[in-house]
Amino acid sequence: MKTQYYAAASLNGFIATTDHGLDWLLQFGDPEDSSYPSFIAEVGALAMGSATYLWLLRNLVHLEPDAPQPWPYEQPVWVFSSRKLPSVPGADIRFVEGDVRPVHQQMAAAADGKNIWLVGGGELVGQFHDHGLLDELIIQVSSVLLEAGMPLLPRNIVDPPLRLLSATTFGESFAELRYAVPRRQP
Amino acid sequence: MKTQYYAAASLNGFIATTDHGLDWLLQFGDPEDSSYPSFIAEVGALAMGSATYLWLLRNLVHLEPDAPQPWPYEQPVWVFSSRKLPSVPGADIRFVEGDVRPVHQQMAAAADGKNIWLVGGGELVGQFHDHGLLDELIIQVSSVLLEAGMPLLPRNIVDPPLRLLSATTFGESFAELRYAVPRRQP
Repeated sequence: MKTQYYAAASLNGFIATTDHGLDWLLQFGDPEDSSYPSFIAEVGALAMGSATYLWLLRNLVHLEPDAPQPWPYEQPVWVFSSRKLPSVPGADIRFVEGDVRPVHQQMAAAADGKNIWLVGGGELVGQFHDHGLLDELIIQVSSVLLEAGMPLLPRNIVDPPLRLLSATTFGESFAELRYAVPRRQP
Repeated sequence: MKTQYYAAASLNGFIATTDHGLDWLLQFGDPEDSSYPSFIAEVGALAMGSATYLWLLRNLVHLEPDAPQPWPYEQPVWVFSSRKLPSVPGADIRFVEGDVRPVHQQMAAAADGKNIWLVGGGELVGQFHDHGLLDELIIQVSSVLLEAGMPLLPRNIVDPPLRLLSATTFGESFAELRYAVPRRQP
């Protein structure tokens, strides 16, 4: 069981524009080839912040007001938010706030040996890392630069550094970089 | 003849800490294997900003006050600065300021068919890009994250996007990503 941050970012480390826009990413369309099917097949639980959740509601579930689309995940999803947020009928969504550690324990129990996917944003993933709960980064580096935006993971991870596991190209639009996050010495 | 930005960055797109520190990069030492020898062999002219130049003076040329080290480049180097900066005896260093276009013409003439290396920082490279004078990015993505720092290239390059040419791993410490910068339609 690993806790993984799987996310697309610009070459300079932004996961969205400052107004949470993803047009720069969505211009590439659905990739012909992607690691996503094999990745999601091994995921047993997801966590995301409120901005990521609201983006999914606005741009996927409720994109067409008269024809709501199904929630995209079969696995249970923990949404961190201090706000009261709308749910999605039929979806297993659990709203939580505060310390990530007890939530991670619940997620690990629910995942039952499968992996935990931290969807984002970067600050939430940083909180998992602060408690030594982040094992891998799997970043789709998109072939764009953004002048400003929401940070991939606003933390210093320098000593020990990450360990690069692989670099794979997907056409001209994405380079996927995989990293192991070393455990700090206690 | 290509104008290339060849630089190391953190995974999240910083080329130095906010105080111009590179300890996060230098911890990896001299790589056993690197693209640098083949890259620099094809470079005929270099451009850099004042912070990059002063970093080289402080950390290389004048690192040991009693034993100055030689300037590392045989090629002519253009240093953009509005300040009066010290030179290095025996080095071909040309101080300039202002519009990058006439300087690029001088550099191209001096390079005589070889490539132009934009060493950094990011804002200077952005000025070359603003005038359509940037052809390639060759970025050594280092296996670290920084919470803040100096930006790789603070511009929106989204439409058209960059074109990923290759992704190569150098051990666990670096992934080198190469991109072509498309010409915008006039």
